[in-house]
Amino acid sequence: MRYNPLRDPADRRLARLAGPSALVIFGVTGDLARKKLIPAIYDLAAGGLLHPGFSVVGYGRRPWSDEQFQEEVAQSVHSHAREAFDERVFERLRAGLRFVEGSFSEPEGFSTLATVLNELAHTRGTGHNHAYYLSIPPGQFPVVTQRLEEAGLAEDAGGAWRRVIVEKPFGSDEKTAAELNLALERVFKPESVFRIDHYLGKETVQNLLALRFANSMYEPIWNAHYVDHVQITMAEEIGVGSRAGYYDGIGAARDVIQNHLLQLLALTAMEEPGTLGADDVRVEKEKVLAAVAPIAHPPSSSARGQYLGGWQGGAAVAGYLDEDGIDHSSRTETYAALRLEVNTRRWQGVPFYLRTGKRLGRRVTEVAVVFKDSPGHLFPEIAHGEVGQNALVIRVQPDEGVTMRFASKVPGPDMQVRNVTMDFGYGHAFTETSPEAYERLILDVLRGDAPLFPRQREVELSWHILDPVLAHWEEQGTPEGYLPGTWGPASADQLLLRDNRVWRRP
Amino acid sequence: MRYNPLRDPADRRLARLAGPSALVIFGVTGDLARKKLIPAIYDLAAGGLLHPGFSVVGYGRRPWSDEQFQEEVAQSVHSHAREAFDERVFERLRAGLRFVEGSFSEPEGFSTLATVLNELAHTRGTGHNHAYYLSIPPGQFPVVTQRLEEAGLAEDAGGAWRRVIVEKPFGSDEKTAAELNLALERVFKPESVFRIDHYLGKETVQNLLALRFANSMYEPIWNAHYVDHVQITMAEEIGVGSRAGYYDGIGAARDVIQNHLLQLLALTAMEEPGTLGADDVRVEKEKVLAAVAPIAHPPSSSARGQYLGGWQGGAAVAGYLDEDGIDHSSRTETYAALRLEVNTRRWQGVPFYLRTGKRLGRRVTEVAVVFKDSPGHLFPEIAHGEVGQNALVIRVQPDEGVTMRFASKVPGPDMQVRNVTMDFGYGHAFTETSPEAYERLILDVLRGDAPLFPRQREVELSWHILDPVLAHWEEQGTPEGYLPGTWGPASADQLLLRDNRVWRRP
Repeated sequence: MRYNPLRDPADRRLARLAGPSALVIFGVTGDLARKKLIPAIYDLAAGGLLHPGFSVVGYGRRPWSDEQFQEEVAQSVHSHAREAFDERVFERLRAGLRFVEGSFSEPEGFSTLATVLNELAHTRGTGHNHAYYLSIPPGQFPVVTQRLEEAGLAEDAGGAWRRVIVEKPFGSDEKTAAELNLALERVFKPESVFRIDHYLGKETVQNLLALRFANSMYEPIWNAHYVDHVQITMAEEIGVGSRAGYYDGIGAARDVIQNHLLQLLALTAMEEPGTLGADDVRVEKEKVLAAVAPIAHPPSSSARGQYLGGWQGGAAVAGYLDEDGIDHSSRTETYAALRLEVNTRRWQGVPFYLRTGKRLGRRVTEVAVVFKDSPGHLFPEIAHGEVGQNALVIRVQPDEGVTMRFASKVPGPDMQVRNVTMDFGYGHAFTETSPEAYERLILDVLRGDAPLFPRQREVELSWHILDPVLAHWEEQGTPEGYLPGTWGPASADQLLLRDNRVWRRP
Repeated sequence: MRYNPLRDPADRRLARLAGPSALVIFGVTGDLARKKLIPAIYDLAAGGLLHPGFSVVGYGRRPWSDEQFQEEVAQSVHSHAREAFDERVFERLRAGLRFVEGSFSEPEGFSTLATVLNELAHTRGTGHNHAYYLSIPPGQFPVVTQRLEEAGLAEDAGGAWRRVIVEKPFGSDEKTAAELNLALERVFKPESVFRIDHYLGKETVQNLLALRFANSMYEPIWNAHYVDHVQITMAEEIGVGSRAGYYDGIGAARDVIQNHLLQLLALTAMEEPGTLGADDVRVEKEKVLAAVAPIAHPPSSSARGQYLGGWQGGAAVAGYLDEDGIDHSSRTETYAALRLEVNTRRWQGVPFYLRTGKRLGRRVTEVAVVFKDSPGHLFPEIAHGEVGQNALVIRVQPDEGVTMRFASKVPGPDMQVRNVTMDFGYGHAFTETSPEAYERLILDVLRGDAPLFPRQREVELSWHILDPVLAHWEEQGTPEGYLPGTWGPASADQLLLRDNRVWRRP
């Protein structure tokens, strides 16, 4: 059963449907729009979460008519939407689909866009509320925002709102992130800039907040008194694949740690916010990121690697340097790990280990809170180290849920204990299906409520954490190689062994 | 796979096998011996946990030969043992099976018994170590122990041990319990008296200790700061059935609360013992029982009921007063509930609610630790009371395991939370099968290691808690009726409603 707010007895949720608006997608012919954005819009419409007059304007260089665009949208919905194709839902959506042919730099297209948006305000009642999704290379942000401004489309006017949506990479270091931001905030108000991190739209990530703050059982042990350390992992089995052009020169740390993993760290480590509203949550996330101790000595707090050729899952796979589109002398890391400390009263002395990589043993994203050893005087298995530490693991993907690892008595005549797990799976617990991350994120933009979107300050704080490590790596030679299907380079294991700990094998 | 200590790399467990000995069963022709004790002995033998010379002497009035007894044992193993019948295991056991015909009061039988035990010491090497299982009415304990003493079978001699095993009821109040104990301890040393509570042999009950003390995650929240209250339930679907003769005049409180439920309370509430040895665990259980606040006003701290006739599971069932063998004017309660407080620093102000009954909604035994409400300011569902309290539930039967109830985000575009559960089931977690309670308990007697058996002081402390309530009920008229398949009388619900709480519906 899909969650239907209209059936919900608590009418406080009715107020949270999206109001009248139009979404303009720049780069609408790209993969992201076709596979994610348009299907998400359809699924939101099918769920009754959009205003009846909601409209979508595709903007691109192709000479498409509205009808051609509508046909493209229908194809994309057929191929990628979560909900079954429903003619009535689609017809309502189709009536608000427009295409504007134009380049990102010439004013003509923007002038046409203004006309079309004006028409939609009159015929569909969008109320001149516009969200601009920049699904285009960051280098083109300045010109597009400038053209929007010139066309009178950027400024909030007469009670109508104008919002802009961008995706990572938010620059490649603290300096370029600030420059990029300037191009956006010169034209749009800070609260009108929405930086999408699609990981933050995932149910389990949002459940981190529910788990911590809607329960009485976890928060008392969620601190340095009881937590030994935290491991945050995003591992992929695949190699760089078709992303070579984007990935090379960027690497694992910029691609994943700067955004996804540091956001997960912030949600795991933050104090309880005053409300779950955007400002209150962001304040707490920023406090955590600002409290991360600067990495004084990168060699002992980081590790990086680059995958070699070899065998994975019974098939021969190419090394990174032999992938199509990768420079044979590339020094880009495909594995990165950090050891961070959060200098707050709550986390004093508790290391947070972050790691991400391609061609690792298994596709998994998780936050593992590992608790201190139990006192071992009653149980020889603990004293001998045969039984591990308690752990609470929030699985973000692929199998969303929560696992608890603890010791239990082994059936039999002796008091022998062994690690067991207790499990909660989203898929089993709820009849509601999980919406795709982009559904949640687009809805949040249209509602103007974005606790999950990082503000510029969070972006800059994240780069501030990462920059010294990136500079250190820049000075080093080629990254250490690691075999496909393993869990990264030897230096990553060393990173934890120095602390007498080991990485989880999820 | 059965747990095999011989395959265990940690040879500390080898020392814990039972040494040479003989077990004498008084009342060997009864149901308990046939369905539980003998099958348990066979299963222990099959598991390699008994000494090769271990012998069993049946004692009773029937004129059985050894061969007839051996045939009876074989039948009982075929019908009730957990392990498949293995000819080799049984033959080894059969060689040590003897039957002694005798009455409980005449000295002749005991003199024969002494001869047989002596023979077994020489032929089987039992080392004159004897355990006497009194599976007979308590009224006959004094004469049997006296005859054992007269036959020189009661006193430890020359390094050999002599132990006696009894089952509930341990008296019917504090005074009669003391009298009964006198009959046992006049003859046997206190540490040689083993009071079996078969609930304490269950895996999950023992796991309570592992759960609490082998983990670091539960103990920090296992106290009055975080726990709102505790509910301990033993519910049966069946009526009094064939136990009428025993049950009438005894009732639910004496039959279950005095032993099983107060022992569960003690294990739940006790402090961490110095070791898991018998003395250390008993000291802690006694501390808890001694710290239970005397019930000052029984009407507001207790409830009782008697089941009426009606429908259960689609079938008409008789009321208690219409059961075979029950006095039509019986005032025996078939449901009993208590509200207790434990006056220790750890539990100050936390009520422990105990209940047991027949003809209730479902067969279940569990300990539910219910945590305080979470602060509701972030989640309207908590503020509105739609989401309940966190709970950790230890399921003793029928489906042994642990369940955790907590709030999780409901998939969907809003931060809505709902109660979910995380589950750990013994049956799924371990390939080892759980031994029957009696296996563990008999092995503990033979080993002389009995942390799970209550000492006399525990028995007296338990009666001390219960006696004022029993006296109050004695003054009252007939118990309140309740319909079969419900969860007891209205007064039981009132007991919790007065505290603004409700019973779990397990």
